[in-house]
Amino acid sequence: MLPALSGLLRPVPAAAQAPATDSPLPSWNDGAAKQAILDFVRATTDQSSQNYVRPEERIATFDQDGTLWVEHPMYSQVVYCLERVPAVVAKRPELRNAEPFKTVLSGNRAAMAKLSMKDLEKILAATLTGMSVDEFNAEAVKWLETARHPRWQRPYTDLVYQPMLEVLRHLRDNGYKTYIVTGGGQDFVRIYSERVYGIPPEQVVGTAGATKYGYAKDGKPFLTKEPKLLLNDNDAGKPEGIHLMIGRRPLAAFGNSNGDREMLEWTDAGAGARLKMLVMHDDATREYAYGPAAGLPDTKVGALTAALYGEAKKDGWPVISMKNDWKRIFAFE
Amino acid sequence: MLPALSGLLRPVPAAAQAPATDSPLPSWNDGAAKQAILDFVRATTDQSSQNYVRPEERIATFDQDGTLWVEHPMYSQVVYCLERVPAVVAKRPELRNAEPFKTVLSGNRAAMAKLSMKDLEKILAATLTGMSVDEFNAEAVKWLETARHPRWQRPYTDLVYQPMLEVLRHLRDNGYKTYIVTGGGQDFVRIYSERVYGIPPEQVVGTAGATKYGYAKDGKPFLTKEPKLLLNDNDAGKPEGIHLMIGRRPLAAFGNSNGDREMLEWTDAGAGARLKMLVMHDDATREYAYGPAAGLPDTKVGALTAALYGEAKKDGWPVISMKNDWKRIFAFE
Repeated sequence: MLPALSGLLRPVPAAAQAPATDSPLPSWNDGAAKQAILDFVRATTDQSSQNYVRPEERIATFDQDGTLWVEHPMYSQVVYCLERVPAVVAKRPELRNAEPFKTVLSGNRAAMAKLSMKDLEKILAATLTGMSVDEFNAEAVKWLETARHPRWQRPYTDLVYQPMLEVLRHLRDNGYKTYIVTGGGQDFVRIYSERVYGIPPEQVVGTAGATKYGYAKDGKPFLTKEPKLLLNDNDAGKPEGIHLMIGRRPLAAFGNSNGDREMLEWTDAGAGARLKMLVMHDDATREYAYGPAAGLPDTKVGALTAALYGEAKKDGWPVISMKNDWKRIFAFE
Repeated sequence: MLPALSGLLRPVPAAAQAPATDSPLPSWNDGAAKQAILDFVRATTDQSSQNYVRPEERIATFDQDGTLWVEHPMYSQVVYCLERVPAVVAKRPELRNAEPFKTVLSGNRAAMAKLSMKDLEKILAATLTGMSVDEFNAEAVKWLETARHPRWQRPYTDLVYQPMLEVLRHLRDNGYKTYIVTGGGQDFVRIYSERVYGIPPEQVVGTAGATKYGYAKDGKPFLTKEPKLLLNDNDAGKPEGIHLMIGRRPLAAFGNSNGDREMLEWTDAGAGARLKMLVMHDDATREYAYGPAAGLPDTKVGALTAALYGEAKKDGWPVISMKNDWKRIFAFE
């Protein structure tokens, strides 16, 4: 029976009288991107659909930086690591005059911007490993509570995209398990994923290092974060990480950069209805515009969309324009 | 209101009229082990309990071999690997006269019993890696359908302990997420975990190797199983694997050997109500009796319970006697 007809025949139930925002994706403008999401969910959850998927297999994966929250001007976890350097050097004074720590301590932003990927890895290793998991969690929680994004002067966890939270919710309302699959540190993201995204820690796949089990003086066991990389969850590491941590191929995947290419490709290569989408940063007023999709020269962060965006255009799969598809960017607006 | 009283006052709903087996743990005899499970579940799920835990944090982990299914006379996955050797040698003839493959091909059981752990590792690497994930899954599915346990002449997946299936169900009925945390191969166990235990692949943590993302000639992406170990999910590897794959400390853990010691210890070291239990193999008639818990000399498989069993006795935590606590062992009985 059509809903319109049923409304004529019996009293409208309370739920149906709720304001229009109770329909899915209220922060999305009507258009191809919104429609693609709605169509995909219907196709995979309507029992009469030829692409129906039983609930157990409904998996959707989301990149984080630039897909679920702001990644400019710098990945927040990198900011965290840089800001941790003074505390690390206080404990390990031999690093004070060693590079790249000396440059970071100098506060010279021009010099810091020139640090190489190898330098950055040294900083990540020194600030993310060599302590217990509990110590790391306590430090990161403290930082997340006090750190502020330089532009909005708000906690980084406020800078999540409201329209993407609605996609997560719409998928979950339809029986999907939603996962974050991030190049960021798995332990870092797990601290706030439940509170911020409604995604429990066990559904966060990220760049992950080994831990080492040991005992404190009182005999209590604890885990130490080791400087040994188990999973570099970028590029091909994303499908590899999905296999390791989930063991099922996702039906839907969302990303925003070339680091997400393999995840999108892997998702798309399965049978039946599939959804792969890119978030395009083309809104300099409300967020940022960067990358060729915005008609701008490449910039350091998120610069990698060029080839992937070309592919999406060529093959006709939907790209999310922050400027045109989203009514608002953040919940606090 | 007491259920008995409520029955006097209003019609008994259909569900309450179901046979007595609808009460939890029907295959368990009354006793300390059954009571410990029921008490723990009540303590962590009753909102008025001081040890109440919100549903999101209800995690329980189970070893597999010897805890959820039969591990004698040999781990089924090791049987699988040995039986795969002829097919591997057919593809890689250079292995035919190389040890340990030559011994396995000879069929000489006495010689095979003498293979070292290093030999076994070579066999595991040759039979579990170097093929795509899809090829591996197809082979393992075929084997699981046709292989028979030498004693019961039934598929290995029939040889799961009915009382433990009831524990899994009781925990899930009370909002727990149940995980397998096994020394066995993660990819192997994930193939049947959902069908056999009701545990989805993403809730299986096991010994895991790296995969490598690549492309077939037609451009389709695939994952190859690499001979590179990421997680040895035994001993300290169990809490390390739990941190990597789940990111929360379990509230309850079940094992049967010293390989589970650290998992039980890690589980127990958290705050609030905790449950750690050992399955003791003391029923030679219906299953097997082995290890010192059964008053028998150590045997090769599952021999490691000696120290751990002593600890359980000393500290007074509950040990499950298959002989005394279980009314039946298998569903097919």
